[in-house]
Amino acid sequence: MDFRSDNVAGAAPEIMAALMEANKGDVSSYGADPWSLKLDAAFSALFEHECKVFPVATGTAANVLSLSCIAPGYGAIYCHQDAHIVTDECNAPEFFTGGAKLVTLPGENGKIDVAALDAALSLGWAGSQHNPQPSAVSITQATEAGTVYSVDEVAAIAERCKRHNMKLHMDGARFANAVAGLNVAPADLTWRAGVDVLSFGATKNGAMGVEAVVFFKPELAESFLYRRKRGAHLFSKARFLSVQLLAMLDNGLWLRLAREANARARELADGLGNLPGAKVIWPVQANEVFVQLPAAAADAMRKRGALFHTWSEADSLYRFVCAFDKTRDDTAALVQAASAALK
Amino acid sequence: MDFRSDNVAGAAPEIMAALMEANKGDVSSYGADPWSLKLDAAFSALFEHECKVFPVATGTAANVLSLSCIAPGYGAIYCHQDAHIVTDECNAPEFFTGGAKLVTLPGENGKIDVAALDAALSLGWAGSQHNPQPSAVSITQATEAGTVYSVDEVAAIAERCKRHNMKLHMDGARFANAVAGLNVAPADLTWRAGVDVLSFGATKNGAMGVEAVVFFKPELAESFLYRRKRGAHLFSKARFLSVQLLAMLDNGLWLRLAREANARARELADGLGNLPGAKVIWPVQANEVFVQLPAAAADAMRKRGALFHTWSEADSLYRFVCAFDKTRDDTAALVQAASAALK
Amino acid sequence: MDFRSDNVAGAAPEIMAALMEANKGDVSSYGADPWSLKLDAAFSALFEHECKVFPVATGTAANVLSLSCIAPGYGAIYCHQDAHIVTDECNAPEFFTGGAKLVTLPGENGKIDVAALDAALSLGWAGSQHNPQPSAVSITQATEAGTVYSVDEVAAIAERCKRHNMKLHMDGARFANAVAGLNVAPADLTWRAGVDVLSFGATKNGAMGVEAVVFFKPELAESFLYRRKRGAHLFSKARFLSVQLLAMLDNGLWLRLAREANARARELADGLGNLPGAKVIWPVQANEVFVQLPAAAADAMRKRGALFHTWSEADSLYRFVCAFDKTRDDTAALVQAASAALK
Amino acid sequence: MDFRSDNVAGAAPEIMAALMEANKGDVSSYGADPWSLKLDAAFSALFEHECKVFPVATGTAANVLSLSCIAPGYGAIYCHQDAHIVTDECNAPEFFTGGAKLVTLPGENGKIDVAALDAALSLGWAGSQHNPQPSAVSITQATEAGTVYSVDEVAAIAERCKRHNMKLHMDGARFANAVAGLNVAPADLTWRAGVDVLSFGATKNGAMGVEAVVFFKPELAESFLYRRKRGAHLFSKARFLSVQLLAMLDNGLWLRLAREANARARELADGLGNLPGAKVIWPVQANEVFVQLPAAAADAMRKRGALFHTWSEADSLYRFVCAFDKTRDDTAALVQAASAALK
Repeated sequence: MDFRSDNVAGAAPEIMAALMEANKGDVSSYGADPWSLKLDAAFSALFEHECKVFPVATGTAANVLSLSCIAPGYGAIYCHQDAHIVTDECNAPEFFTGGAKLVTLPGENGKIDVAALDAALSLGWAGSQHNPQPSAVSITQATEAGTVYSVDEVAAIAERCKRHNMKLHMDGARFANAVAGLNVAPADLTWRAGVDVLSFGATKNGAMGVEAVVFFKPELAESFLYRRKRGAHLFSKARFLSVQLLAMLDNGLWLRLAREANARARELADGLGNLPGAKVIWPVQANEVFVQLPAAAADAMRKRGALFHTWSEADSLYRFVCAFDKTRDDTAALVQAASAALK
Repeated sequence: MDFRSDNVAGAAPEIMAALMEANKGDVSSYGADPWSLKLDAAFSALFEHECKVFPVATGTAANVLSLSCIAPGYGAIYCHQDAHIVTDECNAPEFFTGGAKLVTLPGENGKIDVAALDAALSLGWAGSQHNPQPSAVSITQATEAGTVYSVDEVAAIAERCKRHNMKLHMDGARFANAVAGLNVAPADLTWRAGVDVLSFGATKNGAMGVEAVVFFKPELAESFLYRRKRGAHLFSKARFLSVQLLAMLDNGLWLRLAREANARARELADGLGNLPGAKVIWPVQANEVFVQLPAAAADAMRKRGALFHTWSEADSLYRFVCAFDKTRDDTAALVQAASAALK
Repeated sequence: MDFRSDNVAGAAPEIMAALMEANKGDVSSYGADPWSLKLDAAFSALFEHECKVFPVATGTAANVLSLSCIAPGYGAIYCHQDAHIVTDECNAPEFFTGGAKLVTLPGENGKIDVAALDAALSLGWAGSQHNPQPSAVSITQATEAGTVYSVDEVAAIAERCKRHNMKLHMDGARFANAVAGLNVAPADLTWRAGVDVLSFGATKNGAMGVEAVVFFKPELAESFLYRRKRGAHLFSKARFLSVQLLAMLDNGLWLRLAREANARARELADGLGNLPGAKVIWPVQANEVFVQLPAAAADAMRKRGALFHTWSEADSLYRFVCAFDKTRDDTAALVQAASAALK
Repeated sequence: MDFRSDNVAGAAPEIMAALMEANKGDVSSYGADPWSLKLDAAFSALFEHECKVFPVATGTAANVLSLSCIAPGYGAIYCHQDAHIVTDECNAPEFFTGGAKLVTLPGENGKIDVAALDAALSLGWAGSQHNPQPSAVSITQATEAGTVYSVDEVAAIAERCKRHNMKLHMDGARFANAVAGLNVAPADLTWRAGVDVLSFGATKNGAMGVEAVVFFKPELAESFLYRRKRGAHLFSKARFLSVQLLAMLDNGLWLRLAREANARARELADGLGNLPGAKVIWPVQANEVFVQLPAAAADAMRKRGALFHTWSEADSLYRFVCAFDKTRDDTAALVQAASAALK
């Protein structure tokens, strides 16, 4: 009953099989192997658009290398105050951009409040030598609150980016869960809505460790190769990154895994939400469920073997994340533990 | 007949098996898994000394995170002019240290000339506000020339470090090959000789993608966790890095693989060295062989299917690297191709 | 009637005279001149404590070089959300620290709310690899709101610093105005209250362009010389910086000038505060006055030749700053203009 | 008899008078004052070309801010191995560019050997992800050896820049001395020969402390304002920087002062060069003279009150720099001291 994170899981069997298969013979290193050379085409097909794609090993690398291509050291990057790049990356965005400032914005359900963004953009920073220059917005899809931006919500933020000559980054560590939750075309949720660069997550969704940086405007990627190497993120045996991504895209594995994870979260939300004393506080639109419970009940659940994060001790708020490989039995067991604890 | 690099090979079967074995069940992420927690003890046993050990995915990451712990942005790092950190890391050392200067030194056989180091250290930089402050020396073991520093040679450089209050880093991307070539205890070649921090390579030696940063003085590692995360090099599913390192140390696999690779290089050196028109130009002490050949002969070899790097077109110098999985048949085939090409 | 900033003024006659006097003969450059060599002693006497003092030319340089000595790139620096380092230094703090994060805190009257600081420090960042490490607090004295921290208020923040192993920086661009306003010993307001490093402002207070970085703990200054030079802030003809500071300290000029400026602000506050329709919104404790006025009245004042900043258009809030050389006639004229405009 | 540097001198009387004159009344700060607003036009007239001009206070600031506009963190900057940016700026170039690598080149008389530049550019770095990207060349005019690049020599290097898509920076800390020495139009020595950005020095030539960054291609300057502020190099009372530059250009003061300094160096070269036992080793083309002397003679000169730098103890080589205000009596006295010492 480990619902602490999607990262507690291992890799999907399809991923391990692909790694085994790729471990044959000598191939060119540093990205000139047959698997790496297929990435652009595979993602361009998925997104119905010409993409430049680069594999990296961690979600933080995908985010901060992306941001370094669209925001200079004297730039400002607007994002939600609970965004992973703010709260969980130990200043990696500042490091890779050479000191850009993350301007944090409030917003319900983990999503940027557009009025707050407008207010921040009305301060007259653009062109003023005293202030960082508005350069980018970064949104998280699905959000840290387990919610998703609708296509229209993405487009509304993209409209501000265009108006203010900024670029739009999407942190898609759980992009698969968002697409599965919204049931839209990947293209609709990204470049058609105005996204310029996407961190396409795979690790949380059943890969061993790989993410794809997807540029929808090739010219933004011009310095990526050098930034990746200087960030020490170029793999010599790059085949082992790329083959994971190809396996994910193969036959829609990425969406299948995400749908499973989302279904489990739905089960949890339904099961926990019906218990007296428990309250699901944010819409469950991906693979995470946030529940308010009496602290004593949470303790009791843990004594019964349930593992999960305390999101806010002050608010008695707990997070349950469903990895790709959780089963109906797992969610049922958790609901049962909660039910017993709440009695 | 692919002798371009040790990186053209995949992973050893033992590594793949270990990865499969580690892919079972839920475990804590970000380095709190059972495999990661064993690293300090495993390396401390290997080095007969208390070590602080951190897995990272690339050799460049190991080098530059190490250097960032021992050299500030206003520091100077002394190294050989052909060192990987100078020639092949796209300014990653400068980036991670915040701008430290690599002071490049000449030296025969890929090894720092100690007199040149002494001369550089005699310039009066220490304490002068106009100059970067001497902070570290980085040596490569085995070197880019396929040679090794003897224990005494390491100690001689370490003595300069102590005298000038600098730290000593060893880039051991091919440390296993060096230990195998010298047949010494790992401790003798490192901390006993005065090395402070080691990039312990595994990828070139048959891992899928992992290196260990090994600190012999725990106090130097105090900021490592934060630097690694800020560098985007913390893996969520860290078990997949750590288990590779444990598998390498298990039953001496790392040395077994390195001895095989070195033996193949020996075979190449003997075979090629005996051919009229070919000249092995640096001592073959690890798994690399550098050979001068007529350019036409190199072309002819390539037409017969041999793959290898041109090290210097001007000098008609070629590099042959033996990966852990090359066979006697492979080296015999290459020598035969050379023999035919030289006729 | 130019009340836009203390920076619209030139330099005090005593400063110009000192510069003239120092412009005689050849002296050692880069800080080995007779004036520079006296700085440590002069400030140590002023602060009744051994100080290490370094002249720099701008307030931002003083702030960010100070911060770079006490916060690493993976650090967090806590400050008020309206602090100059946040709002007006174009990411210079992030640049000089190598990417440290400014964690912004709310607080009445431009002063950090200690409860908000406590809340921020309770998030468990210290020792967590995912988060920047709490390293420093920076307070502004006098604040951007024209108020001052009392000695006890400084001490309360310093207590948090000690408890959490952080350092305390004071941005004293208007330190003279604060000391004059509080009428306390400089020592009481700084090191005795727990301040570790002070940006001692002189430019806004009548210098041509110089600030002193004053370290109360010499060990924190160990890297300053190198950081200053690498920041391109070492002057070759350093005498011209140092002599300004000495002239400021000579016979208490710095306090005399600040008292004049504060008195002018007092006159403005009294005069404007008595006008119907005008409201002084923050305590006037230094040389700045913030007044709410009908926008039409502000326009009318400007038509009569008054110059001042719009602090917040939404709040119809205006800032009036009194430079060291403003006269009673100047303030009377401004009050008269306001009186006429408000009729 | 202080010939240690041009920095041991104070400021020219014209500069002091201009500062006094500018110290009147209130003006806009941060570069919107009347003096600052005239800079573009004044320099555009001098250079017969549209220029974007920014005053900064130190030569290092001029150099490194310039370089940061033309070389990214993953870039390579080619320069002479004895260039000030390499030997005397404590890693400021690396800091401001975010880690660019200074690739040092040999060359006679302090000037880059073009063949060595060609060799460095033939290594295949452009487009290779392992290597820093060739971005800029920086030449020093006059050089650290007191020599000057002819117009043709500048053009030859500029030709390489164009061919390899790099920018050309000129460190003109002693640009005035070079122009005076060559007796050419400033335009011929800069943009007409292919220079993109110039650090126009004034401090060494009799200013109190100011340099102009002169962009000959306005588009290269687009980020300069933000880079300057983030580097903490924006002056609030900017009038005091700008007025010095205007005074320098007024009636050709800058060239008049430089011609005087050069004439003094000529006198020294003639006087010292004729002494048995002394040898002037590099062409004297600006205001510096490098002389080989027996160490005992140098000691004897110092005992007689002469001050000068030891350039190389090993080579018994000494440097004599003539500031703008040295007189014929000064040079005669030095030659006399040398003559006595050499007997």
